[in-house]
Amino acid sequence: MSDFLSKQPYKGSRDFFPDEMRSRTWMFNTLRQVVERFGYEEVDAPLLEPLDLYKTKTSEEIVNQQIYSFTDRGDRKVAIRPEMTPTVSRMVAQKLRETPKPIRWYCIPNLWRYERPGKGRLREHWQLNVDLFAAVNETEADIEILEVAINILLSFRAKPGLFKLYLNHRELLNAVFESMLKIEKEKWPTIARILDKKEKIDADYFEKMLSEAGLDQDGIKTLNEYFDTGISFIEKNKAILGEELVNNFLKVLSILNDLGYSELYEYNASVIRGFDYYTGLIFEIFDLHPDNRRSLFGGGRYNNLIGYFGKESANAVGFGMGDVTLEDFLRSHGLYKEFTSKSEVLVANIDENLTTERFHLANILRNAGLNVEVALTGAKLGKQLQEAEKKNIDIVIIQGSEEVEKHSVTVKVMSSREQELVSTENLIEFIKGKL
Amino acid sequence: MSDFLSKQPYKGSRDFFPDEMRSRTWMFNTLRQVVERFGYEEVDAPLLEPLDLYKTKTSEEIVNQQIYSFTDRGDRKVAIRPEMTPTVSRMVAQKLRETPKPIRWYCIPNLWRYERPGKGRLREHWQLNVDLFAAVNETEADIEILEVAINILLSFRAKPGLFKLYLNHRELLNAVFESMLKIEKEKWPTIARILDKKEKIDADYFEKMLSEAGLDQDGIKTLNEYFDTGISFIEKNKAILGEELVNNFLKVLSILNDLGYSELYEYNASVIRGFDYYTGLIFEIFDLHPDNRRSLFGGGRYNNLIGYFGKESANAVGFGMGDVTLEDFLRSHGLYKEFTSKSEVLVANIDENLTTERFHLANILRNAGLNVEVALTGAKLGKQLQEAEKKNIDIVIIQGSEEVEKHSVTVKVMSSREQELVSTENLIEFIKGKL
Repeated sequence: MSDFLSKQPYKGSRDFFPDEMRSRTWMFNTLRQVVERFGYEEVDAPLLEPLDLYKTKTSEEIVNQQIYSFTDRGDRKVAIRPEMTPTVSRMVAQKLRETPKPIRWYCIPNLWRYERPGKGRLREHWQLNVDLFAAVNETEADIEILEVAINILLSFRAKPGLFKLYLNHRELLNAVFESMLKIEKEKWPTIARILDKKEKIDADYFEKMLSEAGLDQDGIKTLNEYFDTGISFIEKNKAILGEELVNNFLKVLSILNDLGYSELYEYNASVIRGFDYYTGLIFEIFDLHPDNRRSLFGGGRYNNLIGYFGKESANAVGFGMGDVTLEDFLRSHGLYKEFTSKSEVLVANIDENLTTERFHLANILRNAGLNVEVALTGAKLGKQLQEAEKKNIDIVIIQGSEEVEKHSVTVKVMSSREQELVSTENLIEFIKGKL
Repeated sequence: MSDFLSKQPYKGSRDFFPDEMRSRTWMFNTLRQVVERFGYEEVDAPLLEPLDLYKTKTSEEIVNQQIYSFTDRGDRKVAIRPEMTPTVSRMVAQKLRETPKPIRWYCIPNLWRYERPGKGRLREHWQLNVDLFAAVNETEADIEILEVAINILLSFRAKPGLFKLYLNHRELLNAVFESMLKIEKEKWPTIARILDKKEKIDADYFEKMLSEAGLDQDGIKTLNEYFDTGISFIEKNKAILGEELVNNFLKVLSILNDLGYSELYEYNASVIRGFDYYTGLIFEIFDLHPDNRRSLFGGGRYNNLIGYFGKESANAVGFGMGDVTLEDFLRSHGLYKEFTSKSEVLVANIDENLTTERFHLANILRNAGLNVEVALTGAKLGKQLQEAEKKNIDIVIIQGSEEVEKHSVTVKVMSSREQELVSTENLIEFIKGKL
């Protein structure tokens, strides 16, 4: 029996060693750069929230089966956040009056869900959240959010053909239910759940379920036509679905075309999404890789959420993208990047009596903006050079008593095997020329 | 009664709105830059750990009264990390064999403790952890860690006189206990706890407690001399305390002097620190501000921790610095910085029919590396300009149908009130000249 403590991270979570961390930092900083180009500003919030925050709009599956919740020492029911939208909405509500509109916020929090770990699914993941609140023109806000989503993938050099944005509008579906199929409102969620399964089940079973839910043959025919004929169905039925609704939606599509995104998106009536808080635009971005064909991330318009925090409400549109699925996407298309240590110089140790000189040299180079490691070993120089190579440090500096006397150092460039005696006066310039 | 959900964050935690977040990002990136200059690499780890991880070396106060722990849905006892050292040690143990030595790691995790919130103390805080493992020369490793700690404050432009590094060595105290006072090892922790209180209690009470703990008058006299006569006590008693121990410690002090830090540090025998895992160097950095005289952060050598995870051990020295105390320090000395939005350009809206043109213009500028907001309102231009000013956006671009015809835009520079018609061809160059 071993009395040692476990070295492994908690099930379904990850340790980020320097190799993984450098790639994660690259991913997150790329995300930051793209969204800041569009004027979004970073926010953050506490990891713990009152459990009540999730009881209103978060799906029952998450609250009942997946949330990490407990009672704190002060008898408060709290949860580790399973998603960020309720928190961001709480924060918007707090500052709604004083903040210039529209409010463009993003964040990259870690989220926790008790799930069975698998491909693209872990218990802890980070998620980019991008949200746009209180825009006067909601149609334009929708277009902007779609542009941001697309540009995130483009900024990782994903080409057209690798992914597709599928978009839909919740009110169009509502209008089909209400004005064309005359279904009572209470039945909408049941029908929507059946539609959400359409892609995964065969046509007969699909029709059987709809029939059991109360739809007659005409209704089923209309629904099939709605799914199969694409945008022409909506254009044809504009009068009955609602002129303004249809025109605004068509405007979104035509402006996306004008802006050069026609290859990257598609109207898709079967995008439903599970969360019940979407009120308008809904979309998903799909990986088109043959081995990985699935939703990468998605979002939409959720105009009712801010109203849960106070009398003043605000419209909202946004999306969340997880780091695990993004990394999978980048890896499967050869777009994932790895980086070596940022250290640029090693000050080697060949004389134990010259500690001060070694540390002093390092500080001179650091003050010039270089990342410098000092050898903390008396091992043979050859071994120190090997360690430098392992860490991809290209410049090694050597100063023994001879060099000290000459006010010089020996500079070794690992990649070219050059070696040169350089006066300390010219050292910074010399090294910067070699990097 | 209100049925609204609370807008406030959980007790003792903080929301970070864009204003606070920009300052936090500045603080964290400054920390990153300094420690990377010394060759430290960033790591990260899951928020949750098995509760057992904290039962070995974390203080009883934290584990019994302050830790956030609960049982997960799989019946595991888990904790939200109250400190990061056990996690980092676990990770080092996991990769000890394959990682080039020494191992220089840092991280900036959020930590949770159930405490009564007060000045400098919150339930959630972020903490820079800097640790150096498996250095062959431990004395040089100690010097490096002290340099990093000092350089962090210097990099925020803290001048000598604003703070002081107090340093001590656990083995020196042990040697005083063992070789000079002949105290049995079992009593060391009790005596150490009394010494830790010395600065806060009067001399009579201090001596009474020592006497009750079993020290005779000679012993008390020796201890008082040890505290009052500074480094000369150690030099005088070198033979009895141990030659190598004293020489190594004096080497640390003399190299710190040689490196130019003599004003910034002081040997201080009363630095004890609460954690029982320190085995060598111990230090604290004190704020010298008259209204805020207290420990900002501290650390030391903890050579025994890695051995809890496996047969192979490694020496370790490091420190942790919290964001709340750092922010207090910077604010009290006028060193805290605030920043405005990173957005540089607003594309105003003066014609609702020109959505595509507006979005297209914004994209051209974004592709040139600018951060650009698009107005999503049909409000009067004056109001749009006001919003730009509130957000400190200096460049506003206006394009109506007249400008479209002329392949031009009107550029307004808010700070100088200049306004100019610029051809779209020259727009990027023009704007970059104005920023």
